[in-house]
Amino acid sequence: MRLSIHSRLRYEVRSPTTFIFAVQVAGAPGDMILAEEISLPEGVAADFLVESQGPNRLVRFLAQPGLIEVAYRAEVDKQPLPAAPGNLPAMSIRDLPPAVLPYLLPSRYCQSDRLPDLAQREFGHLPAGLAQAQAVSDWIAAEVAYRAGASDGGTSAIDTLLDRAGVCRDFAHLGVALCRALDMPARLASGYAWKLQPPDFHAVFQVYLGDAWMTFDATRLAPLDGFVQIAAGRDAADVPFASFFGDAMMLTMQVEVAQAPALTHEAA
Amino acid sequence: MRLSIHSRLRYEVRSPTTFIFAVQVAGAPGDMILAEEISLPEGVAADFLVESQGPNRLVRFLAQPGLIEVAYRAEVDKQPLPAAPGNLPAMSIRDLPPAVLPYLLPSRYCQSDRLPDLAQREFGHLPAGLAQAQAVSDWIAAEVAYRAGASDGGTSAIDTLLDRAGVCRDFAHLGVALCRALDMPARLASGYAWKLQPPDFHAVFQVYLGDAWMTFDATRLAPLDGFVQIAAGRDAADVPFASFFGDAMMLTMQVEVAQAPALTHEAA
Amino acid sequence: MRLSIHSRLRYEVRSPTTFIFAVQVAGAPGDMILAEEISLPEGVAADFLVESQGPNRLVRFLAQPGLIEVAYRAEVDKQPLPAAPGNLPAMSIRDLPPAVLPYLLPSRYCQSDRLPDLAQREFGHLPAGLAQAQAVSDWIAAEVAYRAGASDGGTSAIDTLLDRAGVCRDFAHLGVALCRALDMPARLASGYAWKLQPPDFHAVFQVYLGDAWMTFDATRLAPLDGFVQIAAGRDAADVPFASFFGDAMMLTMQVEVAQAPALTHEAA
Amino acid sequence: MRLSIHSRLRYEVRSPTTFIFAVQVAGAPGDMILAEEISLPEGVAADFLVESQGPNRLVRFLAQPGLIEVAYRAEVDKQPLPAAPGNLPAMSIRDLPPAVLPYLLPSRYCQSDRLPDLAQREFGHLPAGLAQAQAVSDWIAAEVAYRAGASDGGTSAIDTLLDRAGVCRDFAHLGVALCRALDMPARLASGYAWKLQPPDFHAVFQVYLGDAWMTFDATRLAPLDGFVQIAAGRDAADVPFASFFGDAMMLTMQVEVAQAPALTHEAA
Repeated sequence: MRLSIHSRLRYEVRSPTTFIFAVQVAGAPGDMILAEEISLPEGVAADFLVESQGPNRLVRFLAQPGLIEVAYRAEVDKQPLPAAPGNLPAMSIRDLPPAVLPYLLPSRYCQSDRLPDLAQREFGHLPAGLAQAQAVSDWIAAEVAYRAGASDGGTSAIDTLLDRAGVCRDFAHLGVALCRALDMPARLASGYAWKLQPPDFHAVFQVYLGDAWMTFDATRLAPLDGFVQIAAGRDAADVPFASFFGDAMMLTMQVEVAQAPALTHEAA
Repeated sequence: MRLSIHSRLRYEVRSPTTFIFAVQVAGAPGDMILAEEISLPEGVAADFLVESQGPNRLVRFLAQPGLIEVAYRAEVDKQPLPAAPGNLPAMSIRDLPPAVLPYLLPSRYCQSDRLPDLAQREFGHLPAGLAQAQAVSDWIAAEVAYRAGASDGGTSAIDTLLDRAGVCRDFAHLGVALCRALDMPARLASGYAWKLQPPDFHAVFQVYLGDAWMTFDATRLAPLDGFVQIAAGRDAADVPFASFFGDAMMLTMQVEVAQAPALTHEAA
Repeated sequence: MRLSIHSRLRYEVRSPTTFIFAVQVAGAPGDMILAEEISLPEGVAADFLVESQGPNRLVRFLAQPGLIEVAYRAEVDKQPLPAAPGNLPAMSIRDLPPAVLPYLLPSRYCQSDRLPDLAQREFGHLPAGLAQAQAVSDWIAAEVAYRAGASDGGTSAIDTLLDRAGVCRDFAHLGVALCRALDMPARLASGYAWKLQPPDFHAVFQVYLGDAWMTFDATRLAPLDGFVQIAAGRDAADVPFASFFGDAMMLTMQVEVAQAPALTHEAA
Repeated sequence: MRLSIHSRLRYEVRSPTTFIFAVQVAGAPGDMILAEEISLPEGVAADFLVESQGPNRLVRFLAQPGLIEVAYRAEVDKQPLPAAPGNLPAMSIRDLPPAVLPYLLPSRYCQSDRLPDLAQREFGHLPAGLAQAQAVSDWIAAEVAYRAGASDGGTSAIDTLLDRAGVCRDFAHLGVALCRALDMPARLASGYAWKLQPPDFHAVFQVYLGDAWMTFDATRLAPLDGFVQIAAGRDAADVPFASFFGDAMMLTMQVEVAQAPALTHEAA
């Protein structure tokens, strides 16, 4: 399936401000970037960085006071997801690549160190691995209500466990925290999501199974085969679509994801 | 100065358990490893890993039930610290290497996102950079009492700010959190410390200034020029000297750091 | 000074809902109620209760679906505050009346049990009693910024200590928590405040000194001799101006406090 | 059933210290005090206070440096508990006595304001009242493990909900918090418990149903008809068996509860 992605962010800048944007598609396994274009404010000297988590693509620049806009367009060919395996055992800690080890650890918004007993009580009877990860996702879908405005930037997995309400990043944080509490490496991924209503950046959680990151979306708001990854990290603190250091304010944000017509030669 | 380092950890293992140890000296700038030796339980097949933070050296193996011991010895030539610069301005976010960016973010035990107003009130009048980092360290030394048993593994920088008491990891967490709240990249480093009483693993905080990690020890318990780094990370969650997955229990821990006699040819 | 007080609260009620209002002037020492009138929704059977903290006057009734309004008017003769004593020592716990003892204890939003070390470091050098209570109030006034929207109903004294920003209830909570941490009984009082801008219900903190509750307002937003007490309790959880159990929503709230002309015979 | 109760507390006092003890049996409904005796340190002038919550009986005195001991003995005739009613609906907030209203509110260790959604999800399908309160107690018994040392004096109901482990005060806090989140007045009661192993002071939770406080013990460690109430309050902060203000340290604590032989005339 081909997806056309478009995002546009506008800011009022009041003092010289350094911005870091993570809006570019990562090119995660199965996501082939056919074309992309990013348009930056005139005159800025931008760095295009790759940060090793994910790995994540970042654009960084210093903006002078005034109105600025960052717009991004991409065409992505999204491969069909492989058929879900019947089961997939949890990987032994013994066999995890070193780069995956930090995703076993608690992080700012995913305090997995507080949850081992609860996780064992809810999920300990299931086979370690895919069965547990899927059960975590199903449990969150059943127990937490999606409610815009139920949370804010400081809300953590523990808050969501108590409040039983949140938005996509809260669902993802809780998934990450519970999987880590079960000794499975887990992380949060941000991305574009086809059919997400209202359109917005999206967040899901990923569990390291079968030597790859497998994606879960406990919100059930958009099909997984229309999710295109931007960035991944320990939790939402690591993967903001934009962060800035200075005096600025976001004015508008616009996200569009549409199915693009198949190319002629694809039909041939 | 030459330092002889020795550590020894003993565990009772009750079920097959994967251990990850971070006890080897990192070879941080200024720390030259002259010799080292690690002794592992007989028969284990160990992986020697390098994790990119730090970078940190990890030893991982699967242990069968029984008593196990990991012992480490190293001879390190510790270069004198460079004279402290008069001042060093904070680096612009614009100029930070990508690998340093995550150290601006809040982490499990360093909730810097909660502290920007407090940090500005206490330190905002000082020049951004070394002056602020030094003032943070001095402030913690003055305001927080070193008290064994005042905290536990779940204690965070915010807890320590309230309790006004803690141990080395708590002092380091608070330093990290306050420096990040001032938009300076900061991390926690574990290590061996000459003259630390009672002997133990130690923790300090590091701030990225002048394109390098500069070390601060708000506990004032050991001289900085006798600190030999093992591992660095976002906070203590990242740099345990040992973690394990299975049913095991630490029996004893022993740490020794002594000044070694200068080699003859050094005297020559 | 005579004050004319007027408040008006309107709600949309969607299911049978029990309301409890605390809007009536308490008649605290120095506040003489010359006249008052409360108007309730037509047809409700109201209980006028006195709850022993404070003591607080409550009005409780069951409302049927529809629009309801509760309006209150009072004329109060406010005696000039006695001249502040030079000093007033803290009362010995030995001499406190039993009804005052609970105000030594931590409560939902005033976690004084977390703050004894911090309180001793900041205020321990001062004479216990009025000097400390006054210093607590001055410290909050200097260190915390009044900022509408900086907090919400779940914000506690510890949050405010970290955030260094809040509204009147946050200033009061922090005052209560710090005074209790110094072993002085302290409580929160709600009330009407002359000259408060914008007009609203107000909250202050009170410390039990010289066998009476002495009022402090760290916000400095309104003169203490124009504060007319409604209710007192351990913290804001105890003294909402309105609480309800059912499906309802507040539509508007209006508060007015004006100086009333002196009566002719007063002038005589 | 007749119970012989004995408790003995010893302290080392290092500076003049005010103590407040709550060790005397309350004489709650169904508990008839046949005889009691309290022995205080020689020479102290004690106040015997009644605090309105509960109501609770307190003994307060100022102790001089040295070793002190407070010993208490009572014989209590414990009436059999009435047969549990089939059901008992929750009381309307409209009908609650004013003195009960504060027990609807969140308190230091029972943050019921955080739990309404979770409580509705778990217990909302049951009839409000006894059925819900009983289900709360059963749920805690099933979901939380009794584990000495799993908690400390700062542990709250929310901590216990996450940790899934605790001691009697933690079980009681969670019961209180969940019942309040369901809009039922709830409190914590301390007491002596027959057959509790190891012998200690005990804590249970009480829910106001049918115009009386009904007791629940989610720990299942001792029979309810052997529980003799000492004090009741919003949570454990309100009902310590001892608190003191000064420099002192508890040395030993001893509690014994035994069945006493029936009096001859009872058998007649």
